Amino acid sequence: MPVKNAFYAQSGGVTAVINATACGLIEAARKHKNRIGKVYAGRDGIIGALTEDLIDTSKESPAAIKALRYTPAGAFGSCRYKLKGLEENRAQYERLIAVFKAHNIGYFFYNGGNDSADTAYKVSQISEKLGYPVICVGVPKTVDNDLAVTDCCPGFGSVAKYVATSIREAGFDVASMARTSTKVFVLEVMGRHAGWITAACGLAAEKAGDAPQVLLFPEIAFDQEKFLARVDAVVKQYGYCAIGVSEGIRNADGKFLSESGLKDAFGHAQLGGVAPQIASLIKDKLGYKYHWAVADYLQRSARHIASKTDVEQAYAVGKTAVELAIKGRNAVMAVIVRKSNKPYKWTVEAADLKDIANKEKMMPREFISADGFHITAKCRQYLAPLIAGEDYPPYRNGLPAYVKLKNIAVRKKLAAGFKV
Amino acid sequence: MPVKNAFYAQSGGVTAVINATACGLIEAARKHKNRIGKVYAGRDGIIGALTEDLIDTSKESPAAIKALRYTPAGAFGSCRYKLKGLEENRAQYERLIAVFKAHNIGYFFYNGGNDSADTAYKVSQISEKLGYPVICVGVPKTVDNDLAVTDCCPGFGSVAKYVATSIREAGFDVASMARTSTKVFVLEVMGRHAGWITAACGLAAEKAGDAPQVLLFPEIAFDQEKFLARVDAVVKQYGYCAIGVSEGIRNADGKFLSESGLKDAFGHAQLGGVAPQIASLIKDKLGYKYHWAVADYLQRSARHIASKTDVEQAYAVGKTAVELAIKGRNAVMAVIVRKSNKPYKWTVEAADLKDIANKEKMMPREFISADGFHITAKCRQYLAPLIAGEDYPPYRNGLPAYVKLKNIAVRKKLAAGFKV
Repeated sequence: MPVKNAFYAQSGGVTAVINATACGLIEAARKHKNRIGKVYAGRDGIIGALTEDLIDTSKESPAAIKALRYTPAGAFGSCRYKLKGLEENRAQYERLIAVFKAHNIGYFFYNGGNDSADTAYKVSQISEKLGYPVICVGVPKTVDNDLAVTDCCPGFGSVAKYVATSIREAGFDVASMARTSTKVFVLEVMGRHAGWITAACGLAAEKAGDAPQVLLFPEIAFDQEKFLARVDAVVKQYGYCAIGVSEGIRNADGKFLSESGLKDAFGHAQLGGVAPQIASLIKDKLGYKYHWAVADYLQRSARHIASKTDVEQAYAVGKTAVELAIKGRNAVMAVIVRKSNKPYKWTVEAADLKDIANKEKMMPREFISADGFHITAKCRQYLAPLIAGEDYPPYRNGLPAYVKLKNIAVRKKLAAGFKV
Repeated sequence: MPVKNAFYAQSGGVTAVINATACGLIEAARKHKNRIGKVYAGRDGIIGALTEDLIDTSKESPAAIKALRYTPAGAFGSCRYKLKGLEENRAQYERLIAVFKAHNIGYFFYNGGNDSADTAYKVSQISEKLGYPVICVGVPKTVDNDLAVTDCCPGFGSVAKYVATSIREAGFDVASMARTSTKVFVLEVMGRHAGWITAACGLAAEKAGDAPQVLLFPEIAFDQEKFLARVDAVVKQYGYCAIGVSEGIRNADGKFLSESGLKDAFGHAQLGGVAPQIASLIKDKLGYKYHWAVADYLQRSARHIASKTDVEQAYAVGKTAVELAIKGRNAVMAVIVRKSNKPYKWTVEAADLKDIANKEKMMPREFISADGFHITAKCRQYLAPLIAGEDYPPYRNGLPAYVKLKNIAVRKKLAAGFKV
């Protein structure tokens, strides 16, 4: 088979380990030079392909590529840009194929969530029709852990480890202060639709009374009375209460709490997240002094406390994606398959993109305790291996020594530009 | 000299390394059994002394005490409880002495900030007058780094490492997303009066363009126009902007921005911190999409990313406090003295409590750049060694394995209680 170049793009919200996937993919491609020429990365994701703004990763040293394994966020830039349907905007797909053709690209690796799986699937279909077949392989990534088919998603395990560690630490803090000061601590975490990250907070509670004592999932309608009664009972029993709350919790009418009508002095919708609302509610109704934190990007970029399992899986899906591509596997994603829990064993296998595209994997109800405020043993069994092991980055001057790539552009070959 | 027991209490907001100080102190005391009998810890700080609620640390195994070195927060409980002036409430001081006398306590170690230094100083004065002399030694602790005399404060270096690491990581994240999504990220950090923690964020910016590009100090009056112009210029030059902001920034009229009149729908003062306000201001005036985080307790309890220097200093002040006490040094604090910058060398020495009590060490103006938005080379030189080195806790099940002590109470000897 002739040597073709590869195109790789990072898509959507970045994670602590998406660059580990890039590392696995580029290192694997470099080992198969008889099949894959250069790996071109899209500058700012798929936009880089549409605008013919390609980064030549062959200009990066082996050391720089190796450093991607421990560097958070998207080294080539990512984007929130969903390709429209084939009928709606065929021009986008035709442009992709034109760029691929111009740069002799025969492999398309798309590293993202369910939207990206959909795009990769569509590209695989249309490239054939347009007479320039491209092998399209999806590579999973999302902190939300909501991709179908794959047992878990690279990026999630590290967020899970971060939030569980953080709420354990803050729980120790509040417990110290509770006698005369803060009695309630609220940590807001990501996961607007699925409560996987909220559930991960629960891993810190290994014994009765451990923080967090209460979790608020997006899957469970927020019941103010029941919640306040629980918090009050916890404070009375243990002296304090630590709460993990999803940014996406909703009232019984399905409305996000974070959009529940709080306004600032100028009539703008409230600025804050849901943590300050929950904290303020507790102060109003129960009188307890509170503190709250919103981890936001800190949680998904916290490479300094990445899960070793997560890093290994992120690397492995990148590597396997290349191996699948050179075997000619088209329209598949490299997914993680759990072989056993104890000891935890997993492999990376191919799954059809069409089974993953545009699907969302919610938390099973059986992973949430009957009262809705914590996780079950079954959930713990699923989550525990995903945060196992530490994989520290190197430090320089007391700080993680992350790499910034040169990101040298490939010379454009097409006369026409493309407006995104 | 006869063997006397010691009393140790943790005071005020806890830190990632105050237990490392407790560890140093208890291990040192155990090595001097010919001089110090038992170390009693106050349950919930000085309240434990007033209420005769003492914890017998001799009931804890050497392994448990050793584990304090890597366990965040206050293992015996802390409190926000300032003793009144001697004239105002002499009864409190007399009660302390009565409890000390009842339990044969000849050493008083108070681990806290400038309030605690004041209390320890007062106790040293009155104990003499009341005919029961107690050797009082202050042990420094505060994430705010605002104690006088000591070069730095145990607890600060670890917060500094946490915030610098976090804003570097979030900066990488925003840089990835900026093309189509978030362009501005705001991290709110502690330090209501002094900008030391805000300054520490600046350590992450080692080269031009590195995050954070803008810092907002409590020492510099907030100038909205100048700030917005700077943020806009940074976004235009680098594509994104990461901002570290102190919870305590004020307007030109000296009013905290966080109290600047934002109200929720019910007319309550706004719930959030200053980060969402700053972020919203940027959105309103510049139109940039934002994300914000409030680290709150996460920053001061983040033992998982403690500074090795900080842990060593925290341990050393505890150990030295004991050594000073058995030398009969009264009314002193074990302070950190910087001997040289490169290589960084430090020792722990005694300083008079009266020179530390109730004083607050602000950031020198020369540590803040002329435009007020960043740190100077001089500041960097001061801060850099304080975040040097890593000192990871052990992990179990993917999470830091912190210790919870048994905290067994000493049998009470006094008939009377005491209302706090």
